[in-house]
Amino acid sequence: MAQPLPEGISKAQFDEALIKLGEVVGPEWVFADSGGSLDSYKDAFSPVSEAEHRPSAAVAPNSVEEVQAIVRLANEYDLELSPISTGKNYAYGGPAPRKNGAIVLDLKRMNRILEVNEESAYALLEPGVTYIQLYEYLKENNIKLWIDCAAPGWGGVVGNTMDRGAGYTPYGDHVVMQCGMEVVMADGDVIRTGMGAMENSSSWQLFKYGYGPYLDGMFTQSNLGICTKMGVWLMPEPPGYRPFMITVPNEDDLYQLIETLRPLKINMVIPNAAFAVHMVYEAGVQAQKHKYFTGKGPMPPSAMKKMGADLGLGAWNVWGALYGPPPIMDVQWQAIEGAFRQIPGVKFYFEGDRSDTAWTYRSNLMQGIPNMTEFSLMNWDGSDGHASFSPISPVTGRDAVKQFELVREITNRYGFDYVGEFVIGWREIHHIVWMLYHRAKPEEMGRLQTCFKELIDAAAAAGYGEYRTHLAFMDQVKSTYNAFDNGLWKVNDRLKAELDPNGILAPGKSGIWPQK
Amino acid sequence: MAQPLPEGISKAQFDEALIKLGEVVGPEWVFADSGGSLDSYKDAFSPVSEAEHRPSAAVAPNSVEEVQAIVRLANEYDLELSPISTGKNYAYGGPAPRKNGAIVLDLKRMNRILEVNEESAYALLEPGVTYIQLYEYLKENNIKLWIDCAAPGWGGVVGNTMDRGAGYTPYGDHVVMQCGMEVVMADGDVIRTGMGAMENSSSWQLFKYGYGPYLDGMFTQSNLGICTKMGVWLMPEPPGYRPFMITVPNEDDLYQLIETLRPLKINMVIPNAAFAVHMVYEAGVQAQKHKYFTGKGPMPPSAMKKMGADLGLGAWNVWGALYGPPPIMDVQWQAIEGAFRQIPGVKFYFEGDRSDTAWTYRSNLMQGIPNMTEFSLMNWDGSDGHASFSPISPVTGRDAVKQFELVREITNRYGFDYVGEFVIGWREIHHIVWMLYHRAKPEEMGRLQTCFKELIDAAAAAGYGEYRTHLAFMDQVKSTYNAFDNGLWKVNDRLKAELDPNGILAPGKSGIWPQK
Repeated sequence: MAQPLPEGISKAQFDEALIKLGEVVGPEWVFADSGGSLDSYKDAFSPVSEAEHRPSAAVAPNSVEEVQAIVRLANEYDLELSPISTGKNYAYGGPAPRKNGAIVLDLKRMNRILEVNEESAYALLEPGVTYIQLYEYLKENNIKLWIDCAAPGWGGVVGNTMDRGAGYTPYGDHVVMQCGMEVVMADGDVIRTGMGAMENSSSWQLFKYGYGPYLDGMFTQSNLGICTKMGVWLMPEPPGYRPFMITVPNEDDLYQLIETLRPLKINMVIPNAAFAVHMVYEAGVQAQKHKYFTGKGPMPPSAMKKMGADLGLGAWNVWGALYGPPPIMDVQWQAIEGAFRQIPGVKFYFEGDRSDTAWTYRSNLMQGIPNMTEFSLMNWDGSDGHASFSPISPVTGRDAVKQFELVREITNRYGFDYVGEFVIGWREIHHIVWMLYHRAKPEEMGRLQTCFKELIDAAAAAGYGEYRTHLAFMDQVKSTYNAFDNGLWKVNDRLKAELDPNGILAPGKSGIWPQK
Repeated sequence: MAQPLPEGISKAQFDEALIKLGEVVGPEWVFADSGGSLDSYKDAFSPVSEAEHRPSAAVAPNSVEEVQAIVRLANEYDLELSPISTGKNYAYGGPAPRKNGAIVLDLKRMNRILEVNEESAYALLEPGVTYIQLYEYLKENNIKLWIDCAAPGWGGVVGNTMDRGAGYTPYGDHVVMQCGMEVVMADGDVIRTGMGAMENSSSWQLFKYGYGPYLDGMFTQSNLGICTKMGVWLMPEPPGYRPFMITVPNEDDLYQLIETLRPLKINMVIPNAAFAVHMVYEAGVQAQKHKYFTGKGPMPPSAMKKMGADLGLGAWNVWGALYGPPPIMDVQWQAIEGAFRQIPGVKFYFEGDRSDTAWTYRSNLMQGIPNMTEFSLMNWDGSDGHASFSPISPVTGRDAVKQFELVREITNRYGFDYVGEFVIGWREIHHIVWMLYHRAKPEEMGRLQTCFKELIDAAAAAGYGEYRTHLAFMDQVKSTYNAFDNGLWKVNDRLKAELDPNGILAPGKSGIWPQK
């Protein structure tokens, strides 16, 4: 299949542009249609045809200056650039561009750990730095700081933060923990945000806001600039760590479970995000569906019961951890156990109580040890595709139950398992639902797409909006945030028109399209 | 003294515009030059002549719709609007406009507490709501939530947050604790940020980021929109509260004091901002300078020694507090005391140990009880003016000492006392220096202005930038954030040109001027 071209450009112009790009980065770092060199820029798990999100080429610069030069060429040749850091944003599109034919601007070569400051607990990173790389750097240099990683450790720290991902330690709100950016604007100018706007600043990675408008958030989930350096805060290694797992027997316990967690979270008795994970999600990283159910469609309650008993799982499984001196953790645990004891049939597990994959996986994540276990979910029913549906809700039993019932009803009706977890933050729930599917089955893919669209609209009708979505659903999710006659998007469109008048950066990202 | 007019507008046009504004808000809510009705919009403590920051008029709307109508009139009549919430931003300009002749858009009538949610611990507020008002509302309704107030309790929650103020409880980073805005844009359109962009959102005050670019920060310390509603997170009343004060005898102890505080802060052993307050600042709220020193210029060390002994103050005085169940506070205190015991001559004070104004003042602030004690500093030497110099630095002994010596040398050389405190946050210090002066003395005011300008430039040369400044110094502070050929300000200027092409909103705020 021939690669698409960027919109409105001839093959001759395109070829000339590629030569120019090669002059900037070296021809070996320009990838176009020859021998599958663009295969690594596919979304291998896509919920839609790969053909909808294919790059025309990719270019991999090695410095800020090269990024600037590429951006200037893009303006000159009317190229569309789709920046990625490591390109591991799977479930939401991986390395693929939103717009067919855009050129992937692959920042993976810019993977320098520019600074780690143990005293003030931060790092300054280029966009290609992966979680695994940063973790290993800290270990090798005996630096007593923890990272907070996304579930798959091959991902990039900067890319995840730019997409507003969340993690598993007390530093899980990656936007809060980000301090200072360097950004290449669409015209090729470089800026530094916050204190970085001062030439010899002492505090670029220490104080987020600087002076005047605080712009960092404007560059997240957007297409208004290319982040080329980012400061992130790291967590000092605590004097103690105690992960725990709490299981409850019935799906109906969800209400009480969330009501129990809200005060524990809002008062920071549980300092990291508490995960309330549905049995199928939990089982999925270590078991295969067919062992318990060989019929068609979603697993029925009877099979789940057997599976839960076999694997020592509850209908819901709560994960959290304590961090600090043991006497403080003792007091916190007392409060947590006392609250959960009210739920009949509750069970508690600690380090040493279990040795299953689920335990190792969660225990590692909550102390910032990157791994790739999450992808074991693909073994659940032999799926080769997945995308996440990720609405936000208040931390109330009422909202959690309403969401669970709504999402389960729709996913089951379309023949899919409900594979979900509630991530309970300080005042909000990220409800993360894995849609798993077999990409070679056209009928299933059709069902999946209709199902996904129905989920988005049904959630919006109930007042729940997604915090992040796959490339294929960005326009639809945007359309659910339409208050005041699309007021927010009119502003976003004006920012886009002003800062990127030629529309060269990531057209369509988050539903923001250039005027042309 | 006749009021100035907005730039480029005739008296006839101006009068016509005032009539139109009166038709929007009622003529009784338009204030112009008659009988001193504009006196309340002066910066009564200004470091420069009041004549430099005088409004031509003021208009006080009572609703979002009225704000929209005023903004549309401003575009039509070429008016400049200077929005304020309660106008208590003293030390940085109070209610006065940056640009002479702008019309103050006074939002104090919009002072409704629209929602308080005790369960999820937040409030939704209009810009005119004061700290005292919110505090009293919570008390009257027996709502077990704490506020985090600025030192002077008459100020507005929204205005302080828009200016990125900080407070004294664990919720002291007001930008972090803000969730969701409603903003009237310069063209009169209304938007809601974050989840508020969804018509029937369940989570506007619960999840900050929404979907797509996260714009809230862009509206802070800026002139790109008018915030008409804001969500703020409130702190659940903790099961225990223990304020403490730690004094050290020598100015030279600053180095060790800051080195001691850094790990305690970064590990959250001290959960609120720790204040290291210089003796003169501490004494200033309860004593008068002339009692200890009647000479000219700054108080000499010998007089300070006597004053410290009389008032039970150290050269530096550290304030912090613990919040939580007593057994947890016990463990935290053990760590704090153990660390500070290393400083010879250190003393510890708890509730009941002292009954002076300084104790009551700080103890109240750290539990979010608003008060007006800070203004007692004006009694120190009978000053009737003050402005704050507020640079940011890393939390290291080296940086704190360097800043202290630099600022003290300059302030003393110009004949002023050093009246400063170091506010130690998670990873940064806000160094807040009160400049106190007698506004009726032209020679002193001249010295003050030269001194302030030297402070800004000297700090910048050493790598320290201000987080906030008085109207009179906004352009200069901006000029110190000039990296990459003023890259950040070119972006700010483009945002201004796009979102407010007629330049009607707060011209000159943070050094951002309209193109015209």
